[in-house]
Amino acid sequence: MILDSISTPSDIKKLSLAELEELCLDLRSEIIRITSKNGGHLGSNLGAVEIIVASHYVFDCEVDKFIFDVGHQAYAHKLLTGRRKLMEDLREETGASGFPDPSESKYDHFIAGHASTSLSAALGIAKARDLECKNFKIISILGDGSLSGGMIYEAINNAYGEKNFIAILNDNQMSISKTVGAMRKYLSKLLASKKGLLLRKSISKFLSLLPQKTSQRIEKFIKNIIASFSGHNIFEEFGFQYVGPIDGHNIKDLVKVFKNVRDVANYKPIIIHVITQKGKGYSAAELDSTNLHGIDNLKTKKYSDVFGSKIAELAAEDKKIVCITAAMKNGYGLTKFSEEFPDRFFDVGIAEEHAATFAAGLASQGFKPFVCIYSTFLQRCFDQIFHDVVLQNLPVKFIIDKAGFPGKDGKTHSGIYDVALLQNFPNFAIAAPSSVSELESAIKFANEYDKGPIAIRFPKAKAQYLECVDDFSMRSRVVMDGTKTLIVSCGDLLTNVLEAVETSKSSPTVIDARFVLPFDFDTFYKYSCKHDKIIFLEEGIWGGISSVILNELISKNQFDLISKIKFINANNEPARHASRKMQLRENGMSAEEIAKLF
Amino acid sequence: MILDSISTPSDIKKLSLAELEELCLDLRSEIIRITSKNGGHLGSNLGAVEIIVASHYVFDCEVDKFIFDVGHQAYAHKLLTGRRKLMEDLREETGASGFPDPSESKYDHFIAGHASTSLSAALGIAKARDLECKNFKIISILGDGSLSGGMIYEAINNAYGEKNFIAILNDNQMSISKTVGAMRKYLSKLLASKKGLLLRKSISKFLSLLPQKTSQRIEKFIKNIIASFSGHNIFEEFGFQYVGPIDGHNIKDLVKVFKNVRDVANYKPIIIHVITQKGKGYSAAELDSTNLHGIDNLKTKKYSDVFGSKIAELAAEDKKIVCITAAMKNGYGLTKFSEEFPDRFFDVGIAEEHAATFAAGLASQGFKPFVCIYSTFLQRCFDQIFHDVVLQNLPVKFIIDKAGFPGKDGKTHSGIYDVALLQNFPNFAIAAPSSVSELESAIKFANEYDKGPIAIRFPKAKAQYLECVDDFSMRSRVVMDGTKTLIVSCGDLLTNVLEAVETSKSSPTVIDARFVLPFDFDTFYKYSCKHDKIIFLEEGIWGGISSVILNELISKNQFDLISKIKFINANNEPARHASRKMQLRENGMSAEEIAKLF
Repeated sequence: MILDSISTPSDIKKLSLAELEELCLDLRSEIIRITSKNGGHLGSNLGAVEIIVASHYVFDCEVDKFIFDVGHQAYAHKLLTGRRKLMEDLREETGASGFPDPSESKYDHFIAGHASTSLSAALGIAKARDLECKNFKIISILGDGSLSGGMIYEAINNAYGEKNFIAILNDNQMSISKTVGAMRKYLSKLLASKKGLLLRKSISKFLSLLPQKTSQRIEKFIKNIIASFSGHNIFEEFGFQYVGPIDGHNIKDLVKVFKNVRDVANYKPIIIHVITQKGKGYSAAELDSTNLHGIDNLKTKKYSDVFGSKIAELAAEDKKIVCITAAMKNGYGLTKFSEEFPDRFFDVGIAEEHAATFAAGLASQGFKPFVCIYSTFLQRCFDQIFHDVVLQNLPVKFIIDKAGFPGKDGKTHSGIYDVALLQNFPNFAIAAPSSVSELESAIKFANEYDKGPIAIRFPKAKAQYLECVDDFSMRSRVVMDGTKTLIVSCGDLLTNVLEAVETSKSSPTVIDARFVLPFDFDTFYKYSCKHDKIIFLEEGIWGGISSVILNELISKNQFDLISKIKFINANNEPARHASRKMQLRENGMSAEEIAKLF
Repeated sequence: MILDSISTPSDIKKLSLAELEELCLDLRSEIIRITSKNGGHLGSNLGAVEIIVASHYVFDCEVDKFIFDVGHQAYAHKLLTGRRKLMEDLREETGASGFPDPSESKYDHFIAGHASTSLSAALGIAKARDLECKNFKIISILGDGSLSGGMIYEAINNAYGEKNFIAILNDNQMSISKTVGAMRKYLSKLLASKKGLLLRKSISKFLSLLPQKTSQRIEKFIKNIIASFSGHNIFEEFGFQYVGPIDGHNIKDLVKVFKNVRDVANYKPIIIHVITQKGKGYSAAELDSTNLHGIDNLKTKKYSDVFGSKIAELAAEDKKIVCITAAMKNGYGLTKFSEEFPDRFFDVGIAEEHAATFAAGLASQGFKPFVCIYSTFLQRCFDQIFHDVVLQNLPVKFIIDKAGFPGKDGKTHSGIYDVALLQNFPNFAIAAPSSVSELESAIKFANEYDKGPIAIRFPKAKAQYLECVDDFSMRSRVVMDGTKTLIVSCGDLLTNVLEAVETSKSSPTVIDARFVLPFDFDTFYKYSCKHDKIIFLEEGIWGGISSVILNELISKNQFDLISKIKFINANNEPARHASRKMQLRENGMSAEEIAKLF
């Protein structure tokens, strides 16, 4: 393996072009081998191999800085920068994170688990460099999906005139689902332009022949080529020089173009448009690139699948139901819905802010929007939820998957904040169903609920089938009527509570809260007075249900009650990548840990 | 006054062009008269008068829907839609809100106090319309400042192919400060294009002559005109038809163009680029349009002014200090800083997300970024603070003005959530200085603090000069050592506490918390045991300091202490527009209300 000869990134520079191609093959087989045992983002990482190898060959990562967007593409970079051993345990507690992380390596300069952030971070680094009169290059590597997020335009808008500022657009023509909207159409137009295809090869030849001294002449030269090649261009209008499209799997072309860009990047920001194939080199991924975005628990039925089926069923009867997602169609099992009700399905791209306000617009006209965004990404539209949904008290329904511990995705994907955030709002209902039947019933409830915004949260976990006969309501549900200890459980944790009860052979009272807000204090007061000890369990940080409970009890001077309560919640320091099971245990929420509380 | 003849918006349609011009004069003098007594956004509202009159003349607001972006431009609209009496008390408790509000009028379809939201809301309304096979038009009116916010691109990206979807870009060539970046340069280029200027007049003539029946021919006709007029165009690349630039103060031109757009809007989204002058018709505003963005307390020294002076002073000594603001340069008194240190001053436009991550980039390179964003707008970068600042524990300094009640700006500008949001994060320091000297000292402290992110919050209020001898630190400050009642006051409320003490002739112990997080529990424990009653005062909702205190006390089983505590905090239902004084009183934080607690 050529890969074995790379002990530091500088070793890459010693290779011939043919050896670089071999290195790409090595990296591909390593990525396939590792992800097939550890999960992770296979497709996007396979697609980016040549880009990363060519970048390391042309640029100097000891001086220049690579900034990844989202970081679904960084595995090859990790394998090339002294982390082969860590990558062996990718996404495990002992191994490398699935995303770039400066705390893991000096070759990672910025964290990247949420999309569209790269150019803003890169620009901050660039301005710091300029102020210190340093001279390195900053190379951002972003996917086309990142161009659906508004934040990237804020950075583009502010990058005007920035030198040695290079963005490589890895265009694999789809984000997590498929990239949507006008920008996607525009990129395809660039790609399909006859001129572009004809000139694609000759461009890199031209570039390689440019004189390197007279930068003015170079500028004119390049400008002419670009102009003749792609005509006016949206990136050019934003002040970037556009180069491309380039075949992202042709290492020779990439090296040539990167070299020339490196040498002429000293007068304005440059964007290199590289066309890649998601899952390149892996036939299964090539066949179904969407499903191979992340390979993780593919065979287990998850709560999101339950949601996908149920909402499609309800929508057949109720024409007012619409579904909105920010590039998480498959994550939410919405394929069926999108096929059966294409007019009522909106994948807006990685655009959470738009998603929330767009939903508010629909709700203002009497529609019932179900907004499907993972907990960690919902943080991105907090203000839109406040300003456009809450202030107008619109009945938007937020379906929050991955609410709770992030498992192997790690800290950037922590879903532990949503309740603490949303419970701040007036008249915001937050439900946490505890099983498949409860979730199905909760979706029905949310659909009929018209008094204001409502959220339903559930973790990324194997769906639990617990028996439940009554319909979901704002009354909490007494699951077991026992003695001594009262356990109030939120959501899916109920399974662990019941397991703890069984193994410990104790007989506490167990209440399934169903709603965190409004919390059913009637039931709570009725039972709390009969118990010596009260335990609240929530897969979220302090300030979620604890805030709701304490606000009420303090206002009612229920200090005796407070003294009986123990809140079990997630540490507000986001958990490192590991199994969710381990994260639950470390935060006192596994069955074994819960049993210790009785 | 012609304005007197307008009792319903349909009356506008009966006027001649000459009368429309007169109506504009009437509206201008009304706006000047009202804002000169009640404050508000003078410049932007004066600039939008003709746009609004022409819109009402051409479109039918009984059927069509006007959606304002930010709504700094909606006063003329309010005066024309049956709200003259309400406008008399503009921004007062009894009067109209300074922003559009559906709860105020059926002619307001969406709330708008935060920027860049209009097209997302409009698109939601449009999809609802399409699904119900309705036929009205949606007219969004947005400022050029809104184009610096990323969210608008998310909507543009999703508007592809939408019919009867019209955006009027009111380009007054500056947002709150001045619009920055590539988009501004691009708009100026459109404006300055020779072709454009020559054809500007003839365009509207051409448009008015178009045959109205054969839409295919019309499409081609317009496309040709547009193509010859502005060549390729960024909005066209995004799938919009671009019309403009048009003189936004020529009612005749506006009416002609709007009419033609109305009749040809049924095949794709259209953007009309209208050039206006902020403060048009008011010489003072024309002279200094930036200062007249909002006229409110112009003569009072505010905490933000204190910040502006202090940071300029520190920056002279410390080359690592950089200031970043999202279009709030004047609001933060940063003119001096921006003039003295132009290289270290970054106004990124209305782009809070970029601002936070950009700051993280700078901090990652050892700079000391002071990020200046009002409390209500800081909500827009919650996720960037989490993902880019907190996860990397970068020492970014957030300077949060307007933290607390929004005064006459009303509910969209509520600054009561920031502490409840930020205290969720690990290792995030939150300071609330109580006076001018404390603020100055706190800024110095924050500059030297390198252990992680830090925020300094202060209200939009007259700066208070209270004596204080010791330097700001993470120790809270015992202001009065008394008996019976212990008051822990956060921030500027200390002035009210001291006034309450004086008038009530009682002698409580008063502690100035200084830091909400980390809270100085040492001092607190030392004093709390000596008092019967403990009161916490914070200009923010439940879940701010209350969450910090209860988390600690519950973990330490300090239930006796808890039973002595009363938390005075803001209602989480955002306050309606009124004086801050009244809002303080209604939330129990005026001196009189505080006195009742002793």
